[in-house]
Amino acid sequence: MVTRLSHFFLRTLREDPADAEVTSHKLLVRAGYIRRQAPGIFAWLPLGLRVKAKVEQVIREEMTNAGAYEVHFPALLPREPYEITNRWEEYGDGIFRLKDRKDADYLLAPTHEEVFTLLVKDLYSSYKDLPLTIYQIQDKYRDEARPRAGLLRGREFTMKDAYSFDSSDAGLDASYMAQRDAYERIFQRLGLEYVIVQADAGAMGGSRSEEFLHPTAVGEDTFVRSAGGYAANVEAFTTVAPEPIALDGLGAPVIFDSPNTPTIQTLVDHSNAHLEAPVSGIAGPATDGVTEWTAAHTLKNVVLALTHLDGTRELVIVGVPGDRDVDDKRVEVAFAPAAVEPATEQDFAANPLLVKGYIGPWSETGAVLGEESATGIRFFLDPRVVDGTAWVTGANIDQKHVHTLVAGRDFTGDGFVEVASVRAGDPAPDGSGPVELARGMEIGHVFQLGRKYADALGLKVLDENGKLVTVTMGSYGIGVTRILAIIAELNNDDKGLIWPASVAPFDVHVVAAGREPVMFDVAAQLSADLEAAGLDVLYDDRPKVSPGVKFGDAELVGVPKIVIVGRGAADGQVELWDRRTGDREVVSVADAVARLSAR
Amino acid sequence: MVTRLSHFFLRTLREDPADAEVTSHKLLVRAGYIRRQAPGIFAWLPLGLRVKAKVEQVIREEMTNAGAYEVHFPALLPREPYEITNRWEEYGDGIFRLKDRKDADYLLAPTHEEVFTLLVKDLYSSYKDLPLTIYQIQDKYRDEARPRAGLLRGREFTMKDAYSFDSSDAGLDASYMAQRDAYERIFQRLGLEYVIVQADAGAMGGSRSEEFLHPTAVGEDTFVRSAGGYAANVEAFTTVAPEPIALDGLGAPVIFDSPNTPTIQTLVDHSNAHLEAPVSGIAGPATDGVTEWTAAHTLKNVVLALTHLDGTRELVIVGVPGDRDVDDKRVEVAFAPAAVEPATEQDFAANPLLVKGYIGPWSETGAVLGEESATGIRFFLDPRVVDGTAWVTGANIDQKHVHTLVAGRDFTGDGFVEVASVRAGDPAPDGSGPVELARGMEIGHVFQLGRKYADALGLKVLDENGKLVTVTMGSYGIGVTRILAIIAELNNDDKGLIWPASVAPFDVHVVAAGREPVMFDVAAQLSADLEAAGLDVLYDDRPKVSPGVKFGDAELVGVPKIVIVGRGAADGQVELWDRRTGDREVVSVADAVARLSAR
Repeated sequence: MVTRLSHFFLRTLREDPADAEVTSHKLLVRAGYIRRQAPGIFAWLPLGLRVKAKVEQVIREEMTNAGAYEVHFPALLPREPYEITNRWEEYGDGIFRLKDRKDADYLLAPTHEEVFTLLVKDLYSSYKDLPLTIYQIQDKYRDEARPRAGLLRGREFTMKDAYSFDSSDAGLDASYMAQRDAYERIFQRLGLEYVIVQADAGAMGGSRSEEFLHPTAVGEDTFVRSAGGYAANVEAFTTVAPEPIALDGLGAPVIFDSPNTPTIQTLVDHSNAHLEAPVSGIAGPATDGVTEWTAAHTLKNVVLALTHLDGTRELVIVGVPGDRDVDDKRVEVAFAPAAVEPATEQDFAANPLLVKGYIGPWSETGAVLGEESATGIRFFLDPRVVDGTAWVTGANIDQKHVHTLVAGRDFTGDGFVEVASVRAGDPAPDGSGPVELARGMEIGHVFQLGRKYADALGLKVLDENGKLVTVTMGSYGIGVTRILAIIAELNNDDKGLIWPASVAPFDVHVVAAGREPVMFDVAAQLSADLEAAGLDVLYDDRPKVSPGVKFGDAELVGVPKIVIVGRGAADGQVELWDRRTGDREVVSVADAVARLSAR
Repeated sequence: MVTRLSHFFLRTLREDPADAEVTSHKLLVRAGYIRRQAPGIFAWLPLGLRVKAKVEQVIREEMTNAGAYEVHFPALLPREPYEITNRWEEYGDGIFRLKDRKDADYLLAPTHEEVFTLLVKDLYSSYKDLPLTIYQIQDKYRDEARPRAGLLRGREFTMKDAYSFDSSDAGLDASYMAQRDAYERIFQRLGLEYVIVQADAGAMGGSRSEEFLHPTAVGEDTFVRSAGGYAANVEAFTTVAPEPIALDGLGAPVIFDSPNTPTIQTLVDHSNAHLEAPVSGIAGPATDGVTEWTAAHTLKNVVLALTHLDGTRELVIVGVPGDRDVDDKRVEVAFAPAAVEPATEQDFAANPLLVKGYIGPWSETGAVLGEESATGIRFFLDPRVVDGTAWVTGANIDQKHVHTLVAGRDFTGDGFVEVASVRAGDPAPDGSGPVELARGMEIGHVFQLGRKYADALGLKVLDENGKLVTVTMGSYGIGVTRILAIIAELNNDDKGLIWPASVAPFDVHVVAAGREPVMFDVAAQLSADLEAAGLDVLYDDRPKVSPGVKFGDAELVGVPKIVIVGRGAADGQVELWDRRTGDREVVSVADAVARLSAR
């Protein structure tokens, strides 16, 4: 049935919504696709719902092709399964919790690993039942601290989440690749360019995790890639550590006065003014051919406060080369699931051995941090701080630093940690050359969970030998409403939206552009003919609206093919208007039907 | 693509779930359609999701035919709109409430009148924009005190809710009828017999309200109907009041001793033993030709405690003929939105004029209840207590009653109220004859809301004369998951489900019944041919499962058409099995395809 704009529930708006920051948000509201209900919570109007249904249909078809079966879980779920896996606590303020009239705890699920695991546990018992991949397209909830950017980061959003179940690691690999391949087809069909980057497997214990990022300068995620094909998000990047250096022949550590040098830059300036130049070729970082002290010679020790899941608070110190920052996202991943924040003044006051601005792993009387630590504070090092490297760093005395402090001789960490910022030019860990940094938007995530959830919830099956084995799982997510917003973000101009045909709310937008009855007669017949040819038609039959306003609405709404039925109508002529290129072409009505229905 | 049972996510269960009370719940769980997550909260497995999608599709098509446009609101909504209409309070414990991380109040919406009203207010401004009907198919939440009967009364459930907007009463009537007609088509297509009954318009102030009930002896709702076409639920039934009787010539009220007669039956027995027989033909209820005292001669006065929305508590008394009960559902509707409960011992203690078991509207010293009441308690009468009727009732003295107490002379109520039970044989209010009582299940509700929500939320449009007028609205609901359960409840036998073709999860269930390769070859080809003919096919290709188990599963799952590919396969013969009738017929493979695809 032709949708007639004279009755259709659509009002376009002239003004951008006051709270909209990004283009997709502005245009989707102005063009009548969505409407805000609360921060990060939107209603879907008829146009928006049509686009959403088309995105979902593409995903559904590719899930079916990949052998996955669709189920549907409720949003409202009881606390217990999430309690068992610790996620009830781990999510902190990030989820919506509530109680029912009997005071039982519930949550609005942010993701469904637990209940999918329990469902399979309920129904399956043998390796012969596997592999299995099941998915849902479902509304999820997260209580974001700063819901923003319209649909890009909402508090209610639609996701496709799939979960695979296998009795062997090889099975998991196959299930993972089937979903990964399906994701490639989905994004290709949606016209979304993507880069597959290694992602951190995090505290999940999974062995493989990749994100699909759409590369764009306005993306919120940073990733690195090399010309040789390496790609990873910054959290997953691993540092290429230099070879350790023999400890022989290095001088002893030297404490020196360094008044008013609490920052790396002041320390470097002071060193160049008061110390002999670093000896070219001695063991240590970045010294070859360098005749001045630089930030790369210094070891920056940053105190962090972890809050563990059980509520306990722990100070840790990370030592990184002074020419690099401690990257917030890498820190978060490195210490997950603990929450990380900077140490406070109280923390320093409680640990008098930590002299703020002059912290180091060593003092005249021995180890302060690391092995045989005097402080009891764990000390993690950047992988570049290998044995034999010599550093300028704090001497744990106010206004004093030490140089020629050698790793592996004068200090040793409690382990290495990937928290230093990644820079363009850093070598890719796979040897494929230096990396460059780029930005992107996450559009999908495939993830080998391994046995974490199956272990926690007791999902085991009998194997070929009749022995119980724990099932290994994968988790695969696409943010449906998010990628809809990304498509809108990428497909627009100053006039409005320009949908790819695969997700456009209508295939053709017919405009009766004038007041003569013949225009309406021809437009109505053309619309009916196009519908009969299997196309979805939006027909702007508003009797008293000017052609200019109708054209403006058509451009704003963004159906890719527009037909203008104007002055030529009496002669059987109409105009085909390509919304993307702007090209217009006069053709006969019959040709219009033929051209538009040839796909 | 043919769905193969060897891979499909389905496990049938032998045992009924322990918590299942009704057939639909038992069978939907056993046959692998749904799975319980919490009380009244279910996950949908692939079979169930397919049936649900088909029910939704029927509804969607008829909504489109009725000119309604689909939108989709979030389940999580802010408190404010519901606060304005008082529903935040009115729902009491019946809704899920929660707070976000900023301590703002939210609810999981039980229904969406407020936000639909605000949406139209946001976008529309003129009578020319109307009429408009918009709808959604969406998951709703109610914190039922006793979630039960599986999907029949869940805490999360899917509803189609539509709302109409008109600038005139005549417009509302037309929009209402369009939805009402659509409902008739929907239930016809779903094979659901229905009766349209008048329903109470309640506190909404709407002028018309009708329920679609499926008549069934196991229904939870009682309704009345006459042979002449009247039908109403008991809450909406209105009593035919007798004509008032002249007050002349009636004797004065007589107080008499009535020891140990706190109940109607003891009072009637006592009266027959100690009073003169009632005079035939005197004014009063049910006296013509009656020579014994009966319950119908007595006036039963029941004390109720109302709790108003503002939290205040008020005692009221209802007087009904002693041969009728006070009906809980009619009381609830009569005093809505106040909550009603029986008066407590404390209430009686606080009102010494109320002598329990001997309460009446009159005492020797004058009015106790009603006009010039000595108690201050409002007194509502059954419509049958018209002026001139004479009653036996309490005298407000322990162990004493009064007879010949005449309404309109000795006492007057504060109004009439429809709270007495309805009985078979009561006259229909439209004069269409006596009613009978029947039971049914609610499957839909159409409702003229009038201007309640538009008034509260300020939805006005400019009329033809440029004046602002308040919009008038209708509300139209179908419980999608509920009618799915009702269809299951009505379509089954002791072997399992038997779906109507319009909502069956698959069109055909093909069973390879044996171990010979030819059976699998023929079955696979037949399945592919049926899919090519446009049918959805479930093919039981499990290699090591016996024919008996496969047949049992097919019967339990309930696809209406089954094809058995067994011993005849080598000769190109298969068996068509009609799940509903049980008929089996041997046909050639070619005939099977032709027969099954002819619809």
